[in-house]
Amino acid sequence: MTENSTSSAQASARLYGLGLGPGDPELVTLKALRILGQVPVIAYPSAEGTPSLVRQIAAPHLHDGLIEIDMAMPMVEARFPAQQVYQVAAEQISQHLRAGRSVAVLCEGDPLFYGSFMYLYQRLEGVAPIEIVPGVTSVTACAAVAGLPLVARKDSLTVLPGPLDDERLTRRLTSSESDEQAFAIMKVGRHFARLKALLERLGLLEHAWYVERASMADQRVARLSAVEQSQAPYFSMILLHKRGRADVN
Amino acid sequence: MTENSTSSAQASARLYGLGLGPGDPELVTLKALRILGQVPVIAYPSAEGTPSLVRQIAAPHLHDGLIEIDMAMPMVEARFPAQQVYQVAAEQISQHLRAGRSVAVLCEGDPLFYGSFMYLYQRLEGVAPIEIVPGVTSVTACAAVAGLPLVARKDSLTVLPGPLDDERLTRRLTSSESDEQAFAIMKVGRHFARLKALLERLGLLEHAWYVERASMADQRVARLSAVEQSQAPYFSMILLHKRGRADVN
Repeated sequence: MTENSTSSAQASARLYGLGLGPGDPELVTLKALRILGQVPVIAYPSAEGTPSLVRQIAAPHLHDGLIEIDMAMPMVEARFPAQQVYQVAAEQISQHLRAGRSVAVLCEGDPLFYGSFMYLYQRLEGVAPIEIVPGVTSVTACAAVAGLPLVARKDSLTVLPGPLDDERLTRRLTSSESDEQAFAIMKVGRHFARLKALLERLGLLEHAWYVERASMADQRVARLSAVEQSQAPYFSMILLHKRGRADVN
Repeated sequence: MTENSTSSAQASARLYGLGLGPGDPELVTLKALRILGQVPVIAYPSAEGTPSLVRQIAAPHLHDGLIEIDMAMPMVEARFPAQQVYQVAAEQISQHLRAGRSVAVLCEGDPLFYGSFMYLYQRLEGVAPIEIVPGVTSVTACAAVAGLPLVARKDSLTVLPGPLDDERLTRRLTSSESDEQAFAIMKVGRHFARLKALLERLGLLEHAWYVERASMADQRVARLSAVEQSQAPYFSMILLHKRGRADVN
């Protein structure tokens, strides 16, 4: 390879934040599929010691000979070890980009919606052009599975992380006189029992849905009131519309 | 065709709410693409006298011989004529379903997220099995175009319709002491100047982005403060994170 062609390859190397959707490999977009077929390097998060979920979403679409960067997250609460993993990965990715190899970071759902891609994005701005490919989020995937008209007309939608404390959640869930509001509570996981009890105290249990692993083979959907358990998987969500469902009459 | 095979065809006819994403035909999912290739009938909204935008998204993926139902919306403010259009379309769709022909309703973005599909959904529940295929919404498509980390960790996201009045918007935009909040204001359209003035009064202009026709060939993205116009296209959005962007440090 001549100096010239090397430099041209370098110039065209890109970092992709690739939204791969909520879990079903068929909910990948054509654009993400095309980019997966073009890049020589992929990177993805995993929980240390277990297969990467987002790599499983991509698996049917991966070509041979890919270089793979597995960002294995230590399963501890502290934030510091995760930051170290992202830092090491960012350095590896940076080397590939500087050598002219495009890198796609695989993201569950959408890269900029509670995605780990953002940890790399802020470290790699300026190294190469960055392209974000949006993906189907778990919020609308859960609504689809529940058959729940989520928001229409003058409804608003508030997405809340389940780990927020009761006081803060209460303020958000009861903040307005309007009943034209839908809520999605993400990252339910070990907060399940607390969240269910909170919604019951606030009189919001009646309209709440619980959805687990939306669009995956083992998805589960139920009225929250009918679910008895102390915790839930990480990929679970509570959805509710204060009026029951979006009204288009 | 025997009575038996007719009845089996009827039993398998389905109504699909097909999310086709924000505008780029490449942001269609593999699942939506497969279903587009299988159904004999499609239905889609349009503004009376102009080509249907969502049909344009689907156009590269349509096969010959499709039966098409164009739900042409009269361009008047009143709600009643639109309800009539949906009622007539629901009756046509119902006839196809009862005759064993599956129907896909094409939806910009996601069917249950401010989508006109919901007007048909409530009229057709019980006529045939209904399957919702979630799509990429304009919210994350706009964040991707703006390169704006939208929500991370304990951030919340509130999606607000631009037509809400100033009082209600103000209450929502300022409701919490927390700066861990992002907002998406949809359906900006003819409310552009009012919304920009409101955000300026609330001291929120600095971090606001304006995105028009995200992911389409003629998309436009700018700091809201730099946009001088009295109104905006229907497909435009204001995005802002109170802290500037989601922080993952």
